[in-house]
Amino acid sequence: MGKMPAEVDQYIKAHRSEFESDLFELLKIPSVSADSSCDADTEAAAQWVADQFTELGFATEKIETAGHPIVLARSAYQENSPTVMVYGHYDVQPPDPLDEWTSPPFEPSVRDGNVYARGATDDKGQMLTHIKSAEAWIKTCGKLPLNLIFLVEGEEEVGSENLDKYIAEHPEKIACDCVVISDTSQHGPGQPAITYGLRGIAYYELRLFGPSQDLHSGTFGGAVTNPANALTSMLAKLIDGEGKIQVPDFYESVVPLTTREREGFQALSNEQRFQDLVGVTGTTGESGFSTLERRCARPSFDINGIWSGYQGEGAKTVLPAKAVAKFSFRLVPNQDPEQISRNLKTFFESIVPPGIRMELIDFHGAPGVVVPLDSPYIEASARAIEHGFGTAPVYIREGGSIPIVSTFADKLGVESLLLGWGQNDDNMHSPNEKFNLADFHRGVRTSACLWAEIAGIV
Amino acid sequence: MGKMPAEVDQYIKAHRSEFESDLFELLKIPSVSADSSCDADTEAAAQWVADQFTELGFATEKIETAGHPIVLARSAYQENSPTVMVYGHYDVQPPDPLDEWTSPPFEPSVRDGNVYARGATDDKGQMLTHIKSAEAWIKTCGKLPLNLIFLVEGEEEVGSENLDKYIAEHPEKIACDCVVISDTSQHGPGQPAITYGLRGIAYYELRLFGPSQDLHSGTFGGAVTNPANALTSMLAKLIDGEGKIQVPDFYESVVPLTTREREGFQALSNEQRFQDLVGVTGTTGESGFSTLERRCARPSFDINGIWSGYQGEGAKTVLPAKAVAKFSFRLVPNQDPEQISRNLKTFFESIVPPGIRMELIDFHGAPGVVVPLDSPYIEASARAIEHGFGTAPVYIREGGSIPIVSTFADKLGVESLLLGWGQNDDNMHSPNEKFNLADFHRGVRTSACLWAEIAGIV
Repeated sequence: MGKMPAEVDQYIKAHRSEFESDLFELLKIPSVSADSSCDADTEAAAQWVADQFTELGFATEKIETAGHPIVLARSAYQENSPTVMVYGHYDVQPPDPLDEWTSPPFEPSVRDGNVYARGATDDKGQMLTHIKSAEAWIKTCGKLPLNLIFLVEGEEEVGSENLDKYIAEHPEKIACDCVVISDTSQHGPGQPAITYGLRGIAYYELRLFGPSQDLHSGTFGGAVTNPANALTSMLAKLIDGEGKIQVPDFYESVVPLTTREREGFQALSNEQRFQDLVGVTGTTGESGFSTLERRCARPSFDINGIWSGYQGEGAKTVLPAKAVAKFSFRLVPNQDPEQISRNLKTFFESIVPPGIRMELIDFHGAPGVVVPLDSPYIEASARAIEHGFGTAPVYIREGGSIPIVSTFADKLGVESLLLGWGQNDDNMHSPNEKFNLADFHRGVRTSACLWAEIAGIV
Repeated sequence: MGKMPAEVDQYIKAHRSEFESDLFELLKIPSVSADSSCDADTEAAAQWVADQFTELGFATEKIETAGHPIVLARSAYQENSPTVMVYGHYDVQPPDPLDEWTSPPFEPSVRDGNVYARGATDDKGQMLTHIKSAEAWIKTCGKLPLNLIFLVEGEEEVGSENLDKYIAEHPEKIACDCVVISDTSQHGPGQPAITYGLRGIAYYELRLFGPSQDLHSGTFGGAVTNPANALTSMLAKLIDGEGKIQVPDFYESVVPLTTREREGFQALSNEQRFQDLVGVTGTTGESGFSTLERRCARPSFDINGIWSGYQGEGAKTVLPAKAVAKFSFRLVPNQDPEQISRNLKTFFESIVPPGIRMELIDFHGAPGVVVPLDSPYIEASARAIEHGFGTAPVYIREGGSIPIVSTFADKLGVESLLLGWGQNDDNMHSPNEKFNLADFHRGVRTSACLWAEIAGIV
């Protein structure tokens, strides 16, 4: 039972259906931060989260920003207790393509023990486990075993620009001993994980402008630089046949994998299971590395969106006036997104063909991070997971980016514990996002136990 | 005055506003053949054209096909007179992007002597000049000086598949001495042209399918073959840095340009005017050839449309499940589109990466053509143009394709006279398509004169 009182555990068991009802309520709010037509709903989600903390007696602020509000809440202060900050986000990815959802993205639907909805796992469901564990302590013991701060933002999916600004201006408001984030995944079913590494990201939009308007490709083709031709050519030049990214000096500061790390990846690898998971019959990637290493611990280049010209039915012989692509690099320690942006711009300028005007939009960047495995907080987390899930965690690096983790390290000087309750086939950022409800409840229990474990080590 | 009676000329001058009213009526019908939601309008345009011929006392048929109907009309037969067939089309290109039109595409608007509407020049306006010249003869002289057949189809913009089938099955219904087509342009303002060469076309859609659904580019990027990355890479491999198309044997049968032809292109070239026309500050293309040669007489490769992933606001970190491009080659004599399709498929199969399933859709193809300059029909056309426009024509090759021209040569054994009244900045296939109304009336007059000239040479 760890150090968690029996009545807390009992409360969690007894309130499963109330916890689920609350989760479904939050999932019904289409808080798509990238879509300004959802602004009222995004605001409503912030208010919903703030109301949860007020209900628990936390000192709660809804901080207005140039974008979506930040919810900041703190439990009644107890001296001589450590302070843990839970970070999460109430905003979600856009739900499109809508026609690929089995049930509507903002009407939670339970099938086979999973709740299907946009934000189910990323991050509403996982974030809520920590609110509910705090509720269990407060409703049974009258107080928490330590100090909790909750920092819940609404712009994680669009770059956290306003949260970064807030942290830079008010680091004292969120001083803490460590941060807990549940925005990652388990390694597989029944394989809870502590994620000790994350990739960074550098995201761009490249816009190419050619002739002043769309032209007839018969009359003009071959003589006017076609922006769509130029775009495919420029993007193709970003990566070679060996999967090596061609931006100058791109790999210069990459920390090589150690033999111990490569052995760890080897032990967790299952190529066939991976191919079945994503529905492919073959994979490609950077030569010299395994699929798991490519996903978790090596940089990558992906086109996230591309469009130009005619997308309708049939054949339209147009030479388009413009072409646009969104693309991103995933980064590993110690790559610097700002240096990459500079080198990328220079690279594109050297290859953009005559007759094309180029705009490169730099969306947001974050470096990759690796958290030390030997910290007492990591050990406390492992004990809590063993209690909550009934099995010891594996230690993994994950391919996704949580840019705020490097911000916390830089500005607050603290480690982030990345404790994921979801599965890696939960379709974060895809249609039919889901979260297993048994994992949701295990997450609440692990979280409740974690507060006791961390209180015990200080 | 050529051989045209004064009263015909007089009728044309006196009925300018009636001719324009009829043109605007036809332009109001959104007969977009590629868009099945426009089918009722496309049918209405066919009926409108058929009614014009019935009104002139022509034997008129509206021939139903698997697609849009063909309108076939013939004047009262006169023995010992030559038979000329006018070919045109009542269908138009899709009007998108709609937001770039100054006035709505199907509400004809006259500005600075031009009528702006989808189909104004391609081909409703130009086709109508021949109907109106026939009207002028019949209303004044009671009959035409020769036999006229009109063949007006509704699928030119989508490949003319059903017209091809009809011609193959019923060549006797359209036996004639020559064909007249006004679906090209003048060389420049005040430079009417006889187009003696056209490029062919081979048009494709390439669809690439990767993972079974959209994935998170952080969790999976670098390990799953991204269909958008694969698409840009495969398309970029179609053309090298010198503008040479890389499909195997692509140039094998290309007829080289003669010194006389290259001198002709040189005389008509105006690089600065061309760059100003299309709104660019530089051009690219096949090395070793001028801009005009690249446009008119050399093969080319253009992406006509491309799409994949997220096209909305902001940054979505998706690894898309599929990616699609529409693209086309323009061909010159004696390239064979079917041979190119086979070689293209083999080429793509050799470069498609693991983890990607490929579909290549072959839309429609047509070889390039060159018409002999020394035929008496060409000479008659030159005299008619000199009368109708007040200046002698220039002889040009054009970059666009009119696949039906090679069909007429193959199946009927006749030459096509390509007499264009439009301007090359008329925005065929682009927003703000237009047709100069003075050129429209000059076209009617030239056409009326042409019937007399051709009648005189037999």
